[in-house]
Amino acid sequence: MALPFPSGAHLPPVALTIAGSDSGGGAGIQADLKTFCALGVYGASVLTALTAQNTVGVQGVHTVPPEFIAQQFDSVCTDLPVAAAKVGMLATSEVIGVVARKIRQHRLERLVVDPVMVAKSGDRLLAPEAREALVRQLLPLAEVLTPNAEEARDLLGGKSIQGLDDMKEAARALHRLGPRHVLVKGGHLTRGAADILFDGEEITVLEGRRVDTPHTHGTGCTLSSAIAAGLARGQPVREAVRAAKEYIQGAIENALALGKGRGPLNHMYRSCQKVTA
Amino acid sequence: MALPFPSGAHLPPVALTIAGSDSGGGAGIQADLKTFCALGVYGASVLTALTAQNTVGVQGVHTVPPEFIAQQFDSVCTDLPVAAAKVGMLATSEVIGVVARKIRQHRLERLVVDPVMVAKSGDRLLAPEAREALVRQLLPLAEVLTPNAEEARDLLGGKSIQGLDDMKEAARALHRLGPRHVLVKGGHLTRGAADILFDGEEITVLEGRRVDTPHTHGTGCTLSSAIAAGLARGQPVREAVRAAKEYIQGAIENALALGKGRGPLNHMYRSCQKVTA
Repeated sequence: MALPFPSGAHLPPVALTIAGSDSGGGAGIQADLKTFCALGVYGASVLTALTAQNTVGVQGVHTVPPEFIAQQFDSVCTDLPVAAAKVGMLATSEVIGVVARKIRQHRLERLVVDPVMVAKSGDRLLAPEAREALVRQLLPLAEVLTPNAEEARDLLGGKSIQGLDDMKEAARALHRLGPRHVLVKGGHLTRGAADILFDGEEITVLEGRRVDTPHTHGTGCTLSSAIAAGLARGQPVREAVRAAKEYIQGAIENALALGKGRGPLNHMYRSCQKVTA
Repeated sequence: MALPFPSGAHLPPVALTIAGSDSGGGAGIQADLKTFCALGVYGASVLTALTAQNTVGVQGVHTVPPEFIAQQFDSVCTDLPVAAAKVGMLATSEVIGVVARKIRQHRLERLVVDPVMVAKSGDRLLAPEAREALVRQLLPLAEVLTPNAEEARDLLGGKSIQGLDDMKEAARALHRLGPRHVLVKGGHLTRGAADILFDGEEITVLEGRRVDTPHTHGTGCTLSSAIAAGLARGQPVREAVRAAKEYIQGAIENALALGKGRGPLNHMYRSCQKVTA
């Protein structure tokens, strides 16, 4: 499938992922860069942490020194025209502090914040005491915040989210914390894999098709980077979210049974898949 | 362009990059993962070092602790069926030691070694005292070694390489150090951007078309990962090298004038480029 640069452009737009590395390649900056490739944007990256990880779980974490995170930001943002960015794994409140500061300094306004707290395998990716820093320092910078139901509950301090009505209430409550749009992802909560998008005025229910597969490693990373790709291509938030949801639906439907645990999505399903007779 | 999984396969082959990170996205594991995406293989990664880097140069290096490099290897190789791998930036002799040990332990036999020493910008990426470790520990493990003329000279200890005859002699000398195939890249040395491939018996001159562009950031990383992608898809070395050279030719011809220095290749040129009337 040919995917041209945006109308009239001589170059692809640049999107930046600010996130952790997943050695297994299914989540983190690896998933983000694959998504950027699939959606026709040029990907750069600021690494916040490295994980030794595979489809089964997270076996180790190496945190990157805050001053080196800052240095990566400066290298990228003083040289490349970053059109949109996404934030994923941040690990500690110290990392959140430097990331928030650099996002403000380099004026990254088209920003998707994926509040990564726990891996699909259940392993913690954010120190519990860092939740407050995430809420106070990063949420106000987000053009789009993309929590799933558990993350929404944790960000709001504990009330469990059970269905569409709870998701709508959570979206409104999270919007008051600063992000300009909130996308609460329903995932397994609703029969139609529905998500809630709130822009401060209007609630939109975005229906999906539920896919019955265990291979969902990296869905959160992929959705948020797909939204960032749309923003980088100049799409309004609503259009970027709809296109990202369409993309991830196909990537899940074509998910790869690789590894012994939750396999990764097929990020390149539009250009590379099994040939069926 | 639809690129199917290899004949009869239900899954894409897995390729592993063992290399450094380039925050600017044009070289390192970022270039490798983009290449894997373009060539229809699933990419995993073991990060050996992080660089704060852009199209102008390398502003900073953060080395990854050897034991964490080992942990990433174990996470990937105990879970995913790695069909081929490439080695890029290694930074220090300590890193070379752990990488060589893990490659042997996990029996990564379809291995491309790109002896990265200096970035296109001129910045050193390998400690000078590590050359000996690279030669003794890693070269004997390589199915394909991919030095440019300067790297071939450094690996052989200093004799300058000026043209095709010198390249052929260097290929023979490097082969005696253990790699089963040696590809000496001519780059600017020859009018036709010719490379020399030596398999221990036969010398092949691979002609290219010279492209007049300053935007060559990441060519070495990209070529070696494209060869690894071919090996992962089951191609013999000669075919993988020819296909990789064809791919990189297009990626250079479509290179992106992004940033203030040497811009990156367009890794996705087969699916994403400027639409010309």
